Amino acid sequence: MKGKVLLIGAGRSAAALIRFLAEKVRTAHWQVTVSDVSKDFLDKQLAPYPELQAEALDWNPHKMPERFLMSFDVIISLLPPHMHFYVAELCVKHRKHLITASYISPEMAALHQAALDAGVLLLNEMGLDPGIDHMSAMQMMDAIRKEGGRITAFRSYTGGLIAPAYDNNPWHYKFTWNPRNVVLAGQGTPAMYREQGDYKYVPYHQLFKRVQPIHIDGYGEFEAYPNRDSLHYMPLYGLQDVATMLRGTIRRRGFCSAWNCLVQLGLTNDALLIETKNLTWRALVNAFLPYDPQLSVEEKVLRYLQIPAGSHEMHCLQWLGLFEEEPVPAPSAQMTPAALLQLLLEQKWALQAGDRDMIVMQHDIEFELNGKRQREVSELVVEGEANGITAMAKTVGLPLGIAAELLIEGNLSLRGVQAPVHAEIYEPALKRLQSYGIHFKQKKETTAL
Amino acid sequence: MKGKVLLIGAGRSAAALIRFLAEKVRTAHWQVTVSDVSKDFLDKQLAPYPELQAEALDWNPHKMPERFLMSFDVIISLLPPHMHFYVAELCVKHRKHLITASYISPEMAALHQAALDAGVLLLNEMGLDPGIDHMSAMQMMDAIRKEGGRITAFRSYTGGLIAPAYDNNPWHYKFTWNPRNVVLAGQGTPAMYREQGDYKYVPYHQLFKRVQPIHIDGYGEFEAYPNRDSLHYMPLYGLQDVATMLRGTIRRRGFCSAWNCLVQLGLTNDALLIETKNLTWRALVNAFLPYDPQLSVEEKVLRYLQIPAGSHEMHCLQWLGLFEEEPVPAPSAQMTPAALLQLLLEQKWALQAGDRDMIVMQHDIEFELNGKRQREVSELVVEGEANGITAMAKTVGLPLGIAAELLIEGNLSLRGVQAPVHAEIYEPALKRLQSYGIHFKQKKETTAL
Repeated sequence: MKGKVLLIGAGRSAAALIRFLAEKVRTAHWQVTVSDVSKDFLDKQLAPYPELQAEALDWNPHKMPERFLMSFDVIISLLPPHMHFYVAELCVKHRKHLITASYISPEMAALHQAALDAGVLLLNEMGLDPGIDHMSAMQMMDAIRKEGGRITAFRSYTGGLIAPAYDNNPWHYKFTWNPRNVVLAGQGTPAMYREQGDYKYVPYHQLFKRVQPIHIDGYGEFEAYPNRDSLHYMPLYGLQDVATMLRGTIRRRGFCSAWNCLVQLGLTNDALLIETKNLTWRALVNAFLPYDPQLSVEEKVLRYLQIPAGSHEMHCLQWLGLFEEEPVPAPSAQMTPAALLQLLLEQKWALQAGDRDMIVMQHDIEFELNGKRQREVSELVVEGEANGITAMAKTVGLPLGIAAELLIEGNLSLRGVQAPVHAEIYEPALKRLQSYGIHFKQKKETTAL
Repeated sequence: MKGKVLLIGAGRSAAALIRFLAEKVRTAHWQVTVSDVSKDFLDKQLAPYPELQAEALDWNPHKMPERFLMSFDVIISLLPPHMHFYVAELCVKHRKHLITASYISPEMAALHQAALDAGVLLLNEMGLDPGIDHMSAMQMMDAIRKEGGRITAFRSYTGGLIAPAYDNNPWHYKFTWNPRNVVLAGQGTPAMYREQGDYKYVPYHQLFKRVQPIHIDGYGEFEAYPNRDSLHYMPLYGLQDVATMLRGTIRRRGFCSAWNCLVQLGLTNDALLIETKNLTWRALVNAFLPYDPQLSVEEKVLRYLQIPAGSHEMHCLQWLGLFEEEPVPAPSAQMTPAALLQLLLEQKWALQAGDRDMIVMQHDIEFELNGKRQREVSELVVEGEANGITAMAKTVGLPLGIAAELLIEGNLSLRGVQAPVHAEIYEPALKRLQSYGIHFKQKKETTAL
């Protein structure tokens, strides 16, 4: 294959992938075009890379530049998830490979046979989470199964955090990714997982109380809360009969108990519209508390949430400024508590110049082999670079670039709608990721059964 | 007007209204037809009343029997709320009056001018709640305002309960109304009210902790939790500037803290689908608890909910059979926790032969008049009859019948889309309700300002 690659989407998360693609132009004579509806994004992201072509184009599903797309071999889409399907349809029609970092939607899955017939690969879930999580977990588990091991427990945790050197607030958290997703995390259907053969369901208002402590060597103490539907991964990973199956989201130790205070108060609610005129943060908090003229807002919070006055949780709430007589920002006359909270957090949890982010992932797998109970723990920590390229951009973008590389080099024969759970992808991809500093550390334990 | 009345809907809640209408045929020469899609309902409900015509007809919105409807003067609709609009359109077209016990939907409200032009009354919210609550509250408040009083606080509570003589379970509750509405009560948008000038919002997971104790003379101790959007009633009641505005749902003292346990566990969730095969009540409860092989399900519940072993709340959970190894009923392969809980409660909270229900309503109004702080409390208690006609059927049905009576007697000149907040309706209607044993008791307090 010639190596004509189109990247659609040049937002902040594309930085590492764009650098990867530019290097391929220089070293492997690829021809790479980056397209985005925003000329600003293109100018900014492509400035260091004159070897890349830029095309400002509107990828709106109703007027996709179909003829333009036809001149490439491999398309990488960083468009919003719901738009991938429209690109995928064109890719099938014109026999182009497509790579995305998004979950396989039902519409995408329905293109499987058409993609097979056209001889193209529609590779999705090829970022960090989903992406590197699939690949590293499947590599561990396939190795265990090859030896004859029977997997009894699979626990996997991922988090996007602030690197330790730049961690300077009591939440030990800053926004390194979409703030709205963080504020609304866990809302909707209860989280589902399996533990020791029992199915477990966690409603939203319990989610941030149901945390699991995690230790990462060299990085200290973390915690994780259950992440949506872990059961969904059982067939994907060939773990239909596994007794324990849990995926979780990693935060620094103490984050969840403080965040739980916001949940319990109702400040993460996204259904209620509140008048923002003359509203202060203190009044917003008070609106969620029972009336009691004898107590201050602070005292009511302590009593309502049953937390002590000097507690870490209260300190976190105070640090956010939630008790200040400061007017809320009011871009709209009516806003939801979640939208208001997001505006506050975007100030308080903003990355400062020079701040670096950090990706943390841990797989914890128990299995029985040779009459022994064994456990393998695999950990990945990636920090952002001094030049501003984030760990998130690297871990999402590099797998996409590497998948394109495998296709162009003719080393990937898989076709149809796929996730990277196959050795043909994960073996070479994980190996190449290592050369970019993305590598897992493994620990093993063995005890008598 | 001649007195040709059509009642659409002959379900269980129509019993008192049907008796009222039959009496009108005998004493006032009305011609009354009752229609329902179910011939069984008609046969059963009309058996004692040969003076009433029965017509089994399908009132599906897409094929309403328009010509049939044309021969009546007043239509009373007990159809499901979303269907009233289609009847209302026909009523406007053919210049018939319509009476319902349902909330005014936006579509219904939009018919106001057309109804005025046609000279017809589309009277809604003419049951118990909404209905008697509007009428009795407005009567109190109009009297206070007429004297020059300034209303500072309006609190109003309503509940459908089991009458004291038949109250024989630790929840002090049985289903006297739609069970699904009880199980899902409070879900959706947070409850909203106003207290001492502050707006208050209560998310679902706090709702059953935010109870207000209530005492009803002669009936003892109750409690109420905030009922949806109380703020909505401020303009309707002319209370735009009132400092306190709260509507609540009444339960017996102790119900809410026990129900809160089900909410906190997640058993009222209606979004999650659970496999019912081989599921027991004990396993269902366990699925919402953290894994801990050292503790029994009971011990985990006590710890998770932070309730003592001998508590009223635990007794209520045990009484429901939630800790039994009994299989759940499984009409479907997958059901939500809320649907399963409803099946259980329908057994445990079923009315037994001879049981009578009870309606409780209380208005608590504070106002300033003649330099004094005054308070008026008005209470209504209605018990079901020995013949099986429920208090719910009486308090929902009789206002509908009385409204028809006022129209037919020419004593109601109001037209357009209306709720019964006008003296022209509530004065005669409340007076006539008294003759059916539906009367409020009033108490007054006066203190120095």
